[in-house]
Amino acid sequence: MTDWGAIAADRLARIATCSEPGPGVTRLPFTPAHKDALPHIRDWMEAAGLSVAMDAAGTLVGRKDGPAGSGTFYIGSHQDSVREGGMYDGIMGVVLGCLAVEKCASDGHALPFSVEVLAFADEEGVRFPTALLGPRALAGTFDPEVLATADRDGTRLRDALAAFGGAPDAIGALARPRSDAIGYLEAHIEQGPVLETEDEALGVVTAICGIERHAVTFRGETGHAGTLPMAIRRDALVGASALVTAAHMAGLEHPDLRVTVGALDVWPNVVNAVPRAVSLTLEIRAPDDRLREDTGAQLTSMAQDIAARWSLDLDMSRVYRQPAQPCAPELRARLTDAVTATGGKGLSIASGATHDASAMADLCPIAMLFVRCRDGVSHVPEEHASAEDMGAAVAAMAHFLGHLQPTS
Amino acid sequence: MTDWGAIAADRLARIATCSEPGPGVTRLPFTPAHKDALPHIRDWMEAAGLSVAMDAAGTLVGRKDGPAGSGTFYIGSHQDSVREGGMYDGIMGVVLGCLAVEKCASDGHALPFSVEVLAFADEEGVRFPTALLGPRALAGTFDPEVLATADRDGTRLRDALAAFGGAPDAIGALARPRSDAIGYLEAHIEQGPVLETEDEALGVVTAICGIERHAVTFRGETGHAGTLPMAIRRDALVGASALVTAAHMAGLEHPDLRVTVGALDVWPNVVNAVPRAVSLTLEIRAPDDRLREDTGAQLTSMAQDIAARWSLDLDMSRVYRQPAQPCAPELRARLTDAVTATGGKGLSIASGATHDASAMADLCPIAMLFVRCRDGVSHVPEEHASAEDMGAAVAAMAHFLGHLQPTS
Repeated sequence: MTDWGAIAADRLARIATCSEPGPGVTRLPFTPAHKDALPHIRDWMEAAGLSVAMDAAGTLVGRKDGPAGSGTFYIGSHQDSVREGGMYDGIMGVVLGCLAVEKCASDGHALPFSVEVLAFADEEGVRFPTALLGPRALAGTFDPEVLATADRDGTRLRDALAAFGGAPDAIGALARPRSDAIGYLEAHIEQGPVLETEDEALGVVTAICGIERHAVTFRGETGHAGTLPMAIRRDALVGASALVTAAHMAGLEHPDLRVTVGALDVWPNVVNAVPRAVSLTLEIRAPDDRLREDTGAQLTSMAQDIAARWSLDLDMSRVYRQPAQPCAPELRARLTDAVTATGGKGLSIASGATHDASAMADLCPIAMLFVRCRDGVSHVPEEHASAEDMGAAVAAMAHFLGHLQPTS
Repeated sequence: MTDWGAIAADRLARIATCSEPGPGVTRLPFTPAHKDALPHIRDWMEAAGLSVAMDAAGTLVGRKDGPAGSGTFYIGSHQDSVREGGMYDGIMGVVLGCLAVEKCASDGHALPFSVEVLAFADEEGVRFPTALLGPRALAGTFDPEVLATADRDGTRLRDALAAFGGAPDAIGALARPRSDAIGYLEAHIEQGPVLETEDEALGVVTAICGIERHAVTFRGETGHAGTLPMAIRRDALVGASALVTAAHMAGLEHPDLRVTVGALDVWPNVVNAVPRAVSLTLEIRAPDDRLREDTGAQLTSMAQDIAARWSLDLDMSRVYRQPAQPCAPELRARLTDAVTATGGKGLSIASGATHDASAMADLCPIAMLFVRCRDGVSHVPEEHASAEDMGAAVAAMAHFLGHLQPTS
């Protein structure tokens, strides 16, 4: 019997060498390290019986045609990594997608639809100040203005993509017809500790969390730390600290919430001066938009109270908002069935991170499968998913594909 | 009748031009701007009937001999400023000291002791990583190793002092005999808002606050702000914020306490990552060493509780400690009498900042007179003391000198 998990582990170890030097994997989009990865992915696709081509957005597309007029089911993930990231985030989904299609065929399932495995080029957004070029192009939500953005060396995205083999000016024509798109499945490491805690290999994603970010500045007055009496101080850090505490406490109130003050800067930031100003970022994520919005409103109101309490000026504005993307109930139910049919519990789990599926949701129904990762860590060289768990994922994905009967 | 306050204001406006270009006054020790200031100070001293000489440590010393064997009373402050500081911090004490001696003589008081006005060169510690060279030399606490320290351009203190007219290798011989030293009086702007709030020109300092500083680091674990569940986070900023709040609350418990977290840095300090580590400075000042020590111990214990509560590692150590310098009860009582005799209330006030008097306390009993400053600000171009308040200070200091009867 083929050990699909061992094949996945072997392929991932090999493609991990397509990286800039240094710890872990650094494969930024449209770089030489990225280009080195392409032959590996072509081989995986061809082994699955797919015909391979790169599209104008740099996405490697492996396609197997189904019956005429039958529509297309998509499976995908991304090829790029963060700087000094791991061997699994993104590229594992491409490997597992190829193996699922291959296993489906070897199991004797003739799919009643066309299937495409999509290896997207730029999900992480580390090199250029944009991301999700590939799925946005397919979904028809691509914004050509991002082609003018540049990396830190001044290279424009347009030029990097063209040199890679893409066709910047043809991206607009990549949009797929919604009528042909049956759905999209993405496998990804969990990037969190829930599955490990539950002692379970696989989780079925309920929704990709919505995100909102607030830029917050408290302004008070500086003064000599020895001479300014406590009672008349307007210490911006005292206000900011109260908000950090309130934000964490709000997050603890609901298991689906994530509330984080990740960045905080103090002025003048010296040992013997009362802090004059503090800027911080407040990020709220939830799979339910109402819960997220309510939490944002509650913390905005608390920040106002804190500013009044400590005689501070407050400048707080929501600078980013991305609604939650629920996974399609129909696909989610079928994926849960596939997990339980292949030996799993079919655990439900929300995705706190954004994925290619977030952009594909504008084209078609989406489903996501999470694979347990060791210690819940990702974006670090220590990132790890076991061969056994990846094998379970291939089995569940192949079962899902093999039993999918598009109703449209 | 001579308007001593107006003379002080005029002299301070003139010497303020001895500065590097830019906002406010920048007169760093042993620079050309500093050298330009010397003829002004010589003139003030000579107008007061003092004989002027620069000592080996760059201190300008104006002396008027009293009866043989009568001992010496010192009055002093410093000539240097911070970068872009004000016209009053330091140099005002030199002006007022000269005018007090001059007024004493014009009032017909023949002092039964020698008097020296000391214009010290380097109190602020802005150019070199050391300060209080002049008073430490007189007190016999000078550490010759500081001569090897350099400013940010690489110029060593030894060379800067020699070029200025000092004699680095003769500083050790400057120590004055304790038996000859009657006491030391320093006038300084308050650098805080207490006198302004009390609507009072002058305050008599009870003690120069002791200081302790702690270096504090909370260490937890970073993680994806979307995927790491709140309940298992080890967010270093959550712990640090709890300590900032606790420190401020502890400071509010006693009017003499000053507790400040002035600097705080977060790692990795990005919007979508849970903070892995936070370092902060905790500074505690109090005129009473017991109060300061107790507060330090209490906050150390609270930091340990906070670390335990949020599953963080704590690295906290006291990196600096300077005991309080109480003003001498006898001199303080006489100075209070002098203030009330010349129309003031004789308000008591602690000094949260360090002064030349801190180092002179190792030689002899000290007293300090605070002068109200506008809006409580110092070390900024807006720093201001009124001519009227300075006039009141000259009257009180002259009264103090004229009525001082050394008992030894």
